[in-house]
Amino acid sequence: MRVVVALACLLAACLAQKPHPCKSPPLMTGALTMSTQNEKLWLYAKYLYDALGQRIRLFEFGTMNNKTFTYDILLLYNQHVIYQIFHKNKTCIISPLEGDFVPFAIPDEANLLGQAIVGSSSGPGQGLLVNTWIGDLPNKEGKYMSTVTEFGCIPVSLAYQAKEYGWAVLSYFNNVIGITDPSLLNPPSFCPGADTLTGSDKKPVGFFSLFHQDN
Amino acid sequence: MRVVVALACLLAACLAQKPHPCKSPPLMTGALTMSTQNEKLWLYAKYLYDALGQRIRLFEFGTMNNKTFTYDILLLYNQHVIYQIFHKNKTCIISPLEGDFVPFAIPDEANLLGQAIVGSSSGPGQGLLVNTWIGDLPNKEGKYMSTVTEFGCIPVSLAYQAKEYGWAVLSYFNNVIGITDPSLLNPPSFCPGADTLTGSDKKPVGFFSLFHQDN
Repeated sequence: MRVVVALACLLAACLAQKPHPCKSPPLMTGALTMSTQNEKLWLYAKYLYDALGQRIRLFEFGTMNNKTFTYDILLLYNQHVIYQIFHKNKTCIISPLEGDFVPFAIPDEANLLGQAIVGSSSGPGQGLLVNTWIGDLPNKEGKYMSTVTEFGCIPVSLAYQAKEYGWAVLSYFNNVIGITDPSLLNPPSFCPGADTLTGSDKKPVGFFSLFHQDN
Repeated sequence: MRVVVALACLLAACLAQKPHPCKSPPLMTGALTMSTQNEKLWLYAKYLYDALGQRIRLFEFGTMNNKTFTYDILLLYNQHVIYQIFHKNKTCIISPLEGDFVPFAIPDEANLLGQAIVGSSSGPGQGLLVNTWIGDLPNKEGKYMSTVTEFGCIPVSLAYQAKEYGWAVLSYFNNVIGITDPSLLNPPSFCPGADTLTGSDKKPVGFFSLFHQDN
């Protein structure tokens, strides 16, 4: 009985704690969908995320302007390099990578919109305690709204204003802590090394500019 | 040890079960937000939901065409009557209610899009098992996508095509099973009875048409 009371108090104490900005686990594997308000872009992706090595692998499929696409990309932020990988014919396109690595986290300057239970707190396995934060994008380019779990700071959803796309909404799911296959965070052996880019005048590629390419 | 193994098997068995269309609990209290693709309508509402008596109470605030509004409404579907309640001056507007009561449920003809964990399955309290279903709206007016919890069939989100609004997205949260205050599902004493509508030629009011009124 004492244990039950102690656990109830602990739970109440946890629930009663004011949410704080948090960092997501540095190693995660999972999936996400992304859709935009203007319906130009929709995608589903499986992801591997390594904040320690600043590496992200994405296996994507989706539609851009009513054309379907699939992408297998590896972003190596510490080398400022992006690989597009084509397993079918064992080729790669290597390009300089635009922008810096941004880890999954709630920035310190974010404002708490509220804490909520997704689902219900009335039964076991029926609910999930989440915190929703809002703030300004870097360079004040718009607003964002980010929801993470109270326990574990696992990303749930991210909505942000993406210029020509209107609001873009990312939903994360099937996340596990850890990397299910670390080899997927290195370029395949048939890809050229990052040093082959030295002295090249290739245009840096960002996340969105990828979808405007013709390949 | 045996108990742990038995529990693990039970959990695995539950996870392994194919999701089925389901009915949400008949009595619920909670909150929701609604937003539309064209940004015309945004609202936050606390709700009480009684599927047994076909009654819904909504305390709303939001914006419609950049004008803010607040509504306190009681929908009595079994009497086909909607009340707008103004506590400040203890008045009510009573109108005939358009449409039939639609209980929270996944229709039998819905198609499973997928089962997923919101958050993570890597730690306790970090994840929520949900099922997402898609289907056609009645009269084939468009599509819907509905997400409910695997355990309890608690509504999580509903997206549907709402003619002039584009996609409308409802997100449910802070749901509890049961009615926190049953008196809120009856019209206040200062409201006229539903029988005062008999023989009236008042235009029936639906959910959306409410927002186009001037009061």
